[in-house]
Amino acid sequence: MSIGIVSPQVMHFAEPLPLQGGAALADYSLTYETYGTLNADKSNAVLVCHALNASHHVAGVYADEPDNVGWWDNMVGPGKSLDTDKFFVIGVNNLGSCFGSTGPMHANPATGKPYGADFPVVTVEDWVNAQARLADRLGIAQFAAVMGGSLGGMQALAWSIMYPERLRHCLVIASTPKLSAQNIAFNDVARQAILTDPQYHGGDFYAHGVVPKNGLRVARMVGHITYLSDDDMAEKFGRDLRSGDYQFGYGIDFEIESYLRYQGDKFSTYFDANTYLLITKALDYFDPAREFGGDLVKALACTRAKFLLVSFTTDWRFSPERSREMVQALVANKRRVSYAEIDAPHGHDAFLLDDERYMKVVREYYASIWTELAQEGRA
Amino acid sequence: MSIGIVSPQVMHFAEPLPLQGGAALADYSLTYETYGTLNADKSNAVLVCHALNASHHVAGVYADEPDNVGWWDNMVGPGKSLDTDKFFVIGVNNLGSCFGSTGPMHANPATGKPYGADFPVVTVEDWVNAQARLADRLGIAQFAAVMGGSLGGMQALAWSIMYPERLRHCLVIASTPKLSAQNIAFNDVARQAILTDPQYHGGDFYAHGVVPKNGLRVARMVGHITYLSDDDMAEKFGRDLRSGDYQFGYGIDFEIESYLRYQGDKFSTYFDANTYLLITKALDYFDPAREFGGDLVKALACTRAKFLLVSFTTDWRFSPERSREMVQALVANKRRVSYAEIDAPHGHDAFLLDDERYMKVVREYYASIWTELAQEGRA
Repeated sequence: MSIGIVSPQVMHFAEPLPLQGGAALADYSLTYETYGTLNADKSNAVLVCHALNASHHVAGVYADEPDNVGWWDNMVGPGKSLDTDKFFVIGVNNLGSCFGSTGPMHANPATGKPYGADFPVVTVEDWVNAQARLADRLGIAQFAAVMGGSLGGMQALAWSIMYPERLRHCLVIASTPKLSAQNIAFNDVARQAILTDPQYHGGDFYAHGVVPKNGLRVARMVGHITYLSDDDMAEKFGRDLRSGDYQFGYGIDFEIESYLRYQGDKFSTYFDANTYLLITKALDYFDPAREFGGDLVKALACTRAKFLLVSFTTDWRFSPERSREMVQALVANKRRVSYAEIDAPHGHDAFLLDDERYMKVVREYYASIWTELAQEGRA
Repeated sequence: MSIGIVSPQVMHFAEPLPLQGGAALADYSLTYETYGTLNADKSNAVLVCHALNASHHVAGVYADEPDNVGWWDNMVGPGKSLDTDKFFVIGVNNLGSCFGSTGPMHANPATGKPYGADFPVVTVEDWVNAQARLADRLGIAQFAAVMGGSLGGMQALAWSIMYPERLRHCLVIASTPKLSAQNIAFNDVARQAILTDPQYHGGDFYAHGVVPKNGLRVARMVGHITYLSDDDMAEKFGRDLRSGDYQFGYGIDFEIESYLRYQGDKFSTYFDANTYLLITKALDYFDPAREFGGDLVKALACTRAKFLLVSFTTDWRFSPERSREMVQALVANKRRVSYAEIDAPHGHDAFLLDDERYMKVVREYYASIWTELAQEGRA
């Protein structure tokens, strides 16, 4: 059952937010949604962190947009794996995004004009700090869990390092403790496509009334390839031709071309180019082991949460090996860790899709969190 | 020992070349190089077919360009695996390329202006037909071997199907009988980057005195990622930073960014955008099993050559699985096939690099060809 109609809310923060890169955001707003009911002692809250192109709209629909279903609606709702009959779930749009929270398209208080490319490059840790301030305002001292997939999983992991006492459980799905050279390379292709699009205008395209659509389109196409598995693409599209025969031109021959171009076109109509740039940078920069000479065991020594990690066998963007690296570092720190490696054909995107085993793993994990809270008389 | 100084030659063909796409090239020239000496009965000729961004310049250097070393100079030369003391080796630039043979930058006889995007989309089979005419002119009725890597391997395979009696041996290296959906997807990202670059001018950029450099640059960057293995990239670049620390901007942070952008920049100064488009189409279209309902065994039934196939374990562009598919189809046809799967870390690019085992496999295969010719008194 879906959570039904939901409404986003906005919280304004007047106090400046110091950023990892040295700059600070003078003031900012966070757009968020909540589902379920916060219990009396505020112990049943779960923070869901979003990935590259998602938002605070995790579950449900809007009254005026009945088709705009939250990106993890299959996971979050009454009776679902993350059961909103039991838990109070928060989805928050990250700073720099283009879905409501303060971002590059908003006015820079210093100039009165849109930030554009001057919007500071924010990091996963900056997002977590901003999310912690939202938790403060909502009176949530400790989350029952912080959870995310992909880039969202990085935020969950960062929470466990930066605010070890503020989460009981940490769910890191289809994620990695750092990007590989190949991951960074694909991100840089996407960035270069945007930065060199003449319509980008050095990030100031808002003033020109244009959008670097071609750059965004190519960025999305290359990104999309990395979200799907080779096998899944072969299964879904193979070498199927759009018109039954080769066209001997540069239009559409193969269904896979049609699909990717459609995805790229659609993306370029709604996503902000500056947001794409800064979010890929946040991905590239995430590397909690960096300040420990690359030692992930040391980086995770301060954690106190219990963990669930999930990976998917055909995910070649953030392969199971990367999850196992985190599992091993947590085990080395004697943390309690559950780990599921799901044999699913859908590549990185699997973390967003229905898979009975995956949903069951998460469901049972949340059931155990609930039991734990109940045993403490806090459920 | 290198072959030393070499010179390209040009052969003009006045008779029209009918193309698979239905069009015809009214007349055309092929640029080629030869190394070694054709023996009296013209039985020691080896045709080397090039891949995407290479050319007829297989080995040696030019008198006026001593640093311009042929792309397979480590493979072809006196005493090398393909020994020019024994064999007469021909490298030929393919139609539509930008290194000498008739291509999109040359005048269309119908208009007197550069073909541009009107240059017909040529196929691997069209190239082979053009190469066969060059062989006719050179009086070579049968090659001792036709050989190529990647797209060059497709040409070798096509030779074995289209002109079964005209080659004794067929060497197909790091290749595939057809592109996967993922391969096509990456090619289409590259094409879209070029086609949507405003400097492309619908293919007519020659008239505007510009080059779609940004598109070519992105195309090369994404292509280059697929030529390297994830492990090799991790080994060579990892997360190494250019300046020791994060820059919090959109310049260069990581060494891998610097490397890829440099490769993209370099490529965009010398490669023709229309050529890039048509060569990726030739790759996408190659699928000899297509007219046999996808049955590669049937497609290879007409072959008469003996085969050597080589693949590389970390090649994720054209993985060993693809080579094994060809081996199995040839074995099913009772062809004589040798197959080597080289455990090399360098991804698809391995076919261009020195690897003792790889070079030895090819060396011994050519030695056996030489023995075969000698036994027939034709060496």
